[in-house]
Amino acid sequence: MKAIGVTRDVDEPQFLDVPRPEPGEGEALVRTLRVGVDGTDHEVIAGSHGGFPEGEDYMVLGHEAVGVVEEPNGTGLEVGQVVVPTVRRKPDGETNEYFRRGEPDMAPAGEYVERGIVGGHGYMAEYFTSPADYLVPVSDELAEYGFFVEPISITEKANEHAYATREPFEWRPEAACVLGNGSLGLLTLWMFGREYDRTYCVGRRDRPDPTIDIIEELGATYVDSRETSVDEIPDEYEPIDYIYEATGFAPHVIETVHALAPNGVGALLGIPEPWDFEVDGGSLHNELVLHNKCLIGTVNSHIKHFEYAVDTLESMPEWLLEALVTTIATPEAVEPAFADDAEQIKAVVEFDTL
Amino acid sequence: MKAIGVTRDVDEPQFLDVPRPEPGEGEALVRTLRVGVDGTDHEVIAGSHGGFPEGEDYMVLGHEAVGVVEEPNGTGLEVGQVVVPTVRRKPDGETNEYFRRGEPDMAPAGEYVERGIVGGHGYMAEYFTSPADYLVPVSDELAEYGFFVEPISITEKANEHAYATREPFEWRPEAACVLGNGSLGLLTLWMFGREYDRTYCVGRRDRPDPTIDIIEELGATYVDSRETSVDEIPDEYEPIDYIYEATGFAPHVIETVHALAPNGVGALLGIPEPWDFEVDGGSLHNELVLHNKCLIGTVNSHIKHFEYAVDTLESMPEWLLEALVTTIATPEAVEPAFADDAEQIKAVVEFDTL
Repeated sequence: MKAIGVTRDVDEPQFLDVPRPEPGEGEALVRTLRVGVDGTDHEVIAGSHGGFPEGEDYMVLGHEAVGVVEEPNGTGLEVGQVVVPTVRRKPDGETNEYFRRGEPDMAPAGEYVERGIVGGHGYMAEYFTSPADYLVPVSDELAEYGFFVEPISITEKANEHAYATREPFEWRPEAACVLGNGSLGLLTLWMFGREYDRTYCVGRRDRPDPTIDIIEELGATYVDSRETSVDEIPDEYEPIDYIYEATGFAPHVIETVHALAPNGVGALLGIPEPWDFEVDGGSLHNELVLHNKCLIGTVNSHIKHFEYAVDTLESMPEWLLEALVTTIATPEAVEPAFADDAEQIKAVVEFDTL
Repeated sequence: MKAIGVTRDVDEPQFLDVPRPEPGEGEALVRTLRVGVDGTDHEVIAGSHGGFPEGEDYMVLGHEAVGVVEEPNGTGLEVGQVVVPTVRRKPDGETNEYFRRGEPDMAPAGEYVERGIVGGHGYMAEYFTSPADYLVPVSDELAEYGFFVEPISITEKANEHAYATREPFEWRPEAACVLGNGSLGLLTLWMFGREYDRTYCVGRRDRPDPTIDIIEELGATYVDSRETSVDEIPDEYEPIDYIYEATGFAPHVIETVHALAPNGVGALLGIPEPWDFEVDGGSLHNELVLHNKCLIGTVNSHIKHFEYAVDTLESMPEWLLEALVTTIATPEAVEPAFADDAEQIKAVVEFDTL
């Protein structure tokens, strides 16, 4: 079958002809419809995640997918059911406490594989198999945009964890800010628009720019970080109750603390490489303490977050989803989906339609 | 009446003869028994908090107190009731949402005064007045050590906030570490001994040392940070699920992230001055995210935490309280309570006994 993957010697995505996977016990065979491309895929291609599936000299890419059940294989799923797969799986043949509890997103490195990222084939192929427990059924209406369930689930988890930190007191947030104007940032910005009186999104693009258009269509304020650094947001705009970092730009961690309003929380999602720089560690410490601020790191998501994300995606306006998906590539001509193109917001590889 | 306070021109505690306060409506007059001295008092003396009570040229010190009701003044308290006062009060004549909700500990700067710290007279005097709502009744048995209720309440709040961050998943912590072997650190270490399989306490003292004796008597492991820095604890001992920072040493914020086990939380309580230094901000960011770690700053406490603290203090063994209180000074000869003495753990000023 057709697949897009990485091989050991080439640092760009390859068109591969690989065997169609055979579903094991408790697994369904799923025909892939669409697979989204995100920053993690680029990191995998650049080799920073590493870890091919055991015994393989290639790894199929892709972890944001939507497909349709082709062979239920006794799992109880129906042929034709549209499904979205989760990402983390048990490491080869082993289970552990995190999977037993249904919280593989909380497993430390080594206690999981991530399909399309580390140790497991992804979904960017004509077919994939998965245990039915890791397939979230969605309505036929989500056949086209269901690959957004995975990134939205990341934000559902981040929000759950961030809000839990503010539970011990009566938190009354009014302003939220997303750092990063990629597709994850923009999806999150829409979600924030439902909850907050005022929303902001930080990027570093010149107008005219399609992401700035979306930010403003969503009623949010675009903040150009080349003009107003994140820690200057309180002076330039207002202190922010909830900051969601989706840039992977390490200085944002420090700046977030200063941009937060008293009692605010910053959720961190980026995964930068090591980078030494000078900070005012005293003021960072002081500010966290004296104003009861919190920084929470969050990675991955589990099936409950996927289920929340399905509801969220179903509420999203069609115009936003259409505006986000700027590139629809085919497996045979996949290059545009991985291009470095300022006009691109979200690229998908389309294998089939419902 | 006798009082110990700071004046504008002298940077050490002064014996003052000041008017006995008159209780206003809803306020009781309390006869002071004992007042503890802590690091915040030393910061106030050094002038780093500032803000004398409006119109005054002195401020009475002390925010860790226990006293006995002398004049209930229609508040419903009984004469002779032993009480512990909370610290934050409404700024002059004004209330605000934080006080209305009973959460003055979450008020930002400017929305409160702190008795003995900023903008309000403390309790280090023969008498003080307080609205009855900010007096926590305790049993006569706590007349001697009731001044520990305030510092314990700080840990009760920190624990509540830290544990809330881990609520969204099934957290199974086993190891906890206190950074700092002052009296607050040691009280907290005892509290951790009830909850965790293994406890650690970080200091930088040579043996023989009374705090190391207490640490070991509590069954905890003493970590000398001159030999093992906080970020080396996982290699030298084990990764830590919960770290409680009570040093005010800013690099500990960064080191805490690396010392935490996956899914761990660090509560920050120290209040350092600005201090620039180099950090690996990329790894800090990365580690927070990839292992779902959390840093939470926490300051002050509210009446519920004082009530929890009363229960905690009542459970503490007498030997620990006796070992912690190394200095009992009188108002007339208060210098030993503020001395820089390595043998000193906790100093109190005793005004009266029950």
